[in-house]
Amino acid sequence: MKNSGEPPAAVEFWFDFSSPYAYFASLRVEEVAARHGRPVLWRPFMLGVAFKHTGMGSLSRTPLRGDYARRDWARLARHEGVAFRLPPGHPITALPASRAFYWLDETRPALAPAFAKAVFQAYFIENRDLTKAAEVAAIAAGLGLDRLTVEAAIADPAIKDLFKRRTEEAIARGVFGSPFFLVDGEPFWGADRLGMIDEWLSRGGW
Amino acid sequence: MKNSGEPPAAVEFWFDFSSPYAYFASLRVEEVAARHGRPVLWRPFMLGVAFKHTGMGSLSRTPLRGDYARRDWARLARHEGVAFRLPPGHPITALPASRAFYWLDETRPALAPAFAKAVFQAYFIENRDLTKAAEVAAIAAGLGLDRLTVEAAIADPAIKDLFKRRTEEAIARGVFGSPFFLVDGEPFWGADRLGMIDEWLSRGGW
Repeated sequence: MKNSGEPPAAVEFWFDFSSPYAYFASLRVEEVAARHGRPVLWRPFMLGVAFKHTGMGSLSRTPLRGDYARRDWARLARHEGVAFRLPPGHPITALPASRAFYWLDETRPALAPAFAKAVFQAYFIENRDLTKAAEVAAIAAGLGLDRLTVEAAIADPAIKDLFKRRTEEAIARGVFGSPFFLVDGEPFWGADRLGMIDEWLSRGGW
Repeated sequence: MKNSGEPPAAVEFWFDFSSPYAYFASLRVEEVAARHGRPVLWRPFMLGVAFKHTGMGSLSRTPLRGDYARRDWARLARHEGVAFRLPPGHPITALPASRAFYWLDETRPALAPAFAKAVFQAYFIENRDLTKAAEVAAIAAGLGLDRLTVEAAIADPAIKDLFKRRTEEAIARGVFGSPFFLVDGEPFWGADRLGMIDEWLSRGGW
């Protein structure tokens, strides 16, 4: 897998900011990738658009599966020893946060992963309202960014279009759930596949 | 978890015979349970009935998810070093095999798990047609059972009703996918949760 001179290929981490399983994965993905000298490429997308292709619906609102998921999220949080509180209005459409992410990814890429992590924490620990541009700008302000600049970026048609294209790219590449990982072209769906990804990177596939 | 004198509670293994992930789980569940002195209670049910509650459809026939699943099954088979060949007509409704299982479970319970394993192998390795009572009877004959008796059992209204009730029981207890495990009342969905079940049994939950 190593070509001398070329930088190591990133582990692509596709997710929706409103996905609890993506939140749990976001806390571990960098550690797994780093163990193999790989960077992580953070890639939010609109899970609801993928659902239109697969006919799936929001997990929380699906009979039987919703009850299981709520129990599983609490169990995972206890297992990982991390804070987790499902926001009252969950799930939401995290458009402003996703757009702000891609604006950062274009203009200050080094800050984008830290912003993504701050967004996950703001939503799943503090239950802040990711559907509001002002709230997302306040999260970005915590990283030293100017609120008004962030709000303007969220409203920028070019950024809206970029996020739309990233979502289309996700679906064109077979991404249908959150989190979803692409490792040297190999797809892995679900937070509980991080162990398998670790093994895949160790062995160079099988 | 141990009450002196009482037998250890079984790990309940709920599955549909037509589920590839259940096939993979069937190869490992007894080892995991035995490590903690637990027996396994094999419980086929009709996944399609659960789908009516959740609005889910057959994985293989779902856009994006079907392509991923086929790749994932082949990858799991290579990983576990087990034979796996998706039957051409997959998925099927495994009524005769499930009914024969519950007839055995009532009349010769010690044979039921071996029969379930033989059914999985017949379907996922030899691609035999589980929708045909005669084919299922032939599988049972491999365990020393009389074919005509098995065919009669498959057609028995009391056995049909028993399987229907088991499926209703599954859904009433929150089972919505295959495989699905109940461990001291705690639900776990998916073959890739066997590691977590192992840990749950070791620690007595968390």
